[in-house]
Amino acid sequence: MQTPNPPIISLTTDFGERDGYVGIMQGVILSICPNVTLTKLSHLIPAQDVQTAAFVLYQSFNYYPTHTIHCVVVDPGVGSKRRGIAVRTDWGTFVGPDNGVFSLVFSAPNVNVLEAVTLTNPAYQLPVVSSTFHGRDIFAPAAAHLAKGIPLHRLGPPAINLVRLAWAGPTDYKPCRVIHIDHFGNLILSLTEKDIDNPDHVAFAIAGKIIKSLRRTFTDVAEGDLLAYVGSTKHHVEIAIRNGNAAQTLSTKVGDVVELLED
Amino acid sequence: MQTPNPPIISLTTDFGERDGYVGIMQGVILSICPNVTLTKLSHLIPAQDVQTAAFVLYQSFNYYPTHTIHCVVVDPGVGSKRRGIAVRTDWGTFVGPDNGVFSLVFSAPNVNVLEAVTLTNPAYQLPVVSSTFHGRDIFAPAAAHLAKGIPLHRLGPPAINLVRLAWAGPTDYKPCRVIHIDHFGNLILSLTEKDIDNPDHVAFAIAGKIIKSLRRTFTDVAEGDLLAYVGSTKHHVEIAIRNGNAAQTLSTKVGDVVELLED
Amino acid sequence: MQTPNPPIISLTTDFGERDGYVGIMQGVILSICPNVTLTKLSHLIPAQDVQTAAFVLYQSFNYYPTHTIHCVVVDPGVGSKRRGIAVRTDWGTFVGPDNGVFSLVFSAPNVNVLEAVTLTNPAYQLPVVSSTFHGRDIFAPAAAHLAKGIPLHRLGPPAINLVRLAWAGPTDYKPCRVIHIDHFGNLILSLTEKDIDNPDHVAFAIAGKIIKSLRRTFTDVAEGDLLAYVGSTKHHVEIAIRNGNAAQTLSTKVGDVVELLED
Repeated sequence: MQTPNPPIISLTTDFGERDGYVGIMQGVILSICPNVTLTKLSHLIPAQDVQTAAFVLYQSFNYYPTHTIHCVVVDPGVGSKRRGIAVRTDWGTFVGPDNGVFSLVFSAPNVNVLEAVTLTNPAYQLPVVSSTFHGRDIFAPAAAHLAKGIPLHRLGPPAINLVRLAWAGPTDYKPCRVIHIDHFGNLILSLTEKDIDNPDHVAFAIAGKIIKSLRRTFTDVAEGDLLAYVGSTKHHVEIAIRNGNAAQTLSTKVGDVVELLED
Repeated sequence: MQTPNPPIISLTTDFGERDGYVGIMQGVILSICPNVTLTKLSHLIPAQDVQTAAFVLYQSFNYYPTHTIHCVVVDPGVGSKRRGIAVRTDWGTFVGPDNGVFSLVFSAPNVNVLEAVTLTNPAYQLPVVSSTFHGRDIFAPAAAHLAKGIPLHRLGPPAINLVRLAWAGPTDYKPCRVIHIDHFGNLILSLTEKDIDNPDHVAFAIAGKIIKSLRRTFTDVAEGDLLAYVGSTKHHVEIAIRNGNAAQTLSTKVGDVVELLED
Repeated sequence: MQTPNPPIISLTTDFGERDGYVGIMQGVILSICPNVTLTKLSHLIPAQDVQTAAFVLYQSFNYYPTHTIHCVVVDPGVGSKRRGIAVRTDWGTFVGPDNGVFSLVFSAPNVNVLEAVTLTNPAYQLPVVSSTFHGRDIFAPAAAHLAKGIPLHRLGPPAINLVRLAWAGPTDYKPCRVIHIDHFGNLILSLTEKDIDNPDHVAFAIAGKIIKSLRRTFTDVAEGDLLAYVGSTKHHVEIAIRNGNAAQTLSTKVGDVVELLED
């Protein structure tokens, strides 16, 4: 059996870029599946921040080919009873801890979960499994064996009742909140475009500022001005400062409430 | 038509490494051109800093094979009227916004621009083009299609009068200035070796310090001492502290003037 | 002669991720060996910190296939008389400055050094060798030529008496010290599991705190509590705070002494 294109594994962790932990996972993967293409979404997820990892994966996965394996290791429960899982969908296969990190993806409208297993088969783990680094010992080997063509059901028994994050989709948050702050200091909101009746007459209140109407892009306002617009997810509304950092200027953090007004 | 070697795309952005924006671009590229080799020059260009991106590209591009496609997305004008361009030279093909980010490369003595187009053909863009993330919707697809072998002229009509940065080469800066500060705190100057008549009798004045003569390497001075030398560009003079951080010690920033003295 | 799998080069440097220096090395490597798989262990080794680079390499190398070439450029002596070396072992080939950065690997129990050379043959260097960037001019080309299949002995004459770090293995440090602090703030100690007689009755004293017994994993203690455990090296004892940052909380730095007590 030939796959026409090289297998792809994307990695997402909170390991940082300093210590070689990601390099170790890459070594494990290349030892098992030498022709894989490795990419990363982020290794700078804040430590143990499952919600941020879930968001980063959610805004990225559907730009990858559907044969991609997305391996996510943000794993505060490592070594405890929490399960390791692999889940096949029609938009990629997902490998990591069962702590809700995939729940935004699995509740996306265009994603169907086809098969899910618990990663218990030692034949697809490293010979010695530590209690502190399942990224290396369980998740990287599982992703690599899947990339090599091993069928999902060989990795372990079916997994049901997967853990779901409290916020696993836009409708879970009322009122509207900041769900992510990106590198530029742009605020991504739980609110999506279709929640807004009239884009020209909407307004947002945050940190004592009122931001009127939904703009198309940054250059619709002057440098240094606040604006609201539909961001790069194509659904979620974002608040930014043109050529500035909205999060810093407004002293905003993830979870802050944004009030929706009519103008 | 076969290229003998896998196509290469290098990415340079100000997206940071945290949010998955680069991972999204990689997914778009791999969806179009699965056998590409992806590298990065930097994703830590300061936000909207076209000059720094231009310098990083300029000191790197000629170490890549000439069939490399360099995709640069530092794009403060995204969504405005600024053009997206792809430019073929005898030292690689360049894809990104027409904001001057390529002008140092294009004025390098060994580079000839062979063909330039404006990226307007929707057949080589994602189906929906946002107003805020052309890296994903226009530049990544353009680079991937070129990597796949699509001829440049198919991407859009010829582009002329490309934007040029105020500083697009050593002769543009009199007096001599700091044009880049690297990770080690070394100061790269606009001055090049051939601007110096006598390397043994030159001296540099910056932040109240005098640095005498042009050295060969760091170990020519004691630890903690300042030195001037021809840096890794092989042309530009740099000022550093052996095993120290010159930028921090001298409180220097990009744009600062360095006085040239005769010793 | 065919290698069955694509060659692999892992890179480890103190170059940071901002300036394109790593991108330049990748370009040099891809120019020589187009089908290589490139990975990184870290480019965020603190500037000139040979000991940290040695540790990161030491905890990673044996997760890579044995045909991997590990190229390490943390090189405070660049341009001086220090040698450049390439060393073939039964667990990979190592390329970089002869400053001790490989000495932890070479004294690991399962590693046999098979052949070592000094990198003096100009045929396997860039045409012009600078005095400040041997990563680009000497080490990247050497690694790439080896990846391409050039035999080691062609790169230069045999190298003997390789430099060894003061701390090149657990038995070199009495008393026990912190040898590495990772991204999570976990403290990796020079002490290994086999140095401990009774894991249930051992205790560790650091920064005025006593940490009792050796635990299996983070979730064996409450959130915010200190614990000691055998970390991801599978040998070295580590001290951490569950879902916290031990290094920050205890104000610890590399080299600090940890007292071993009997409980």
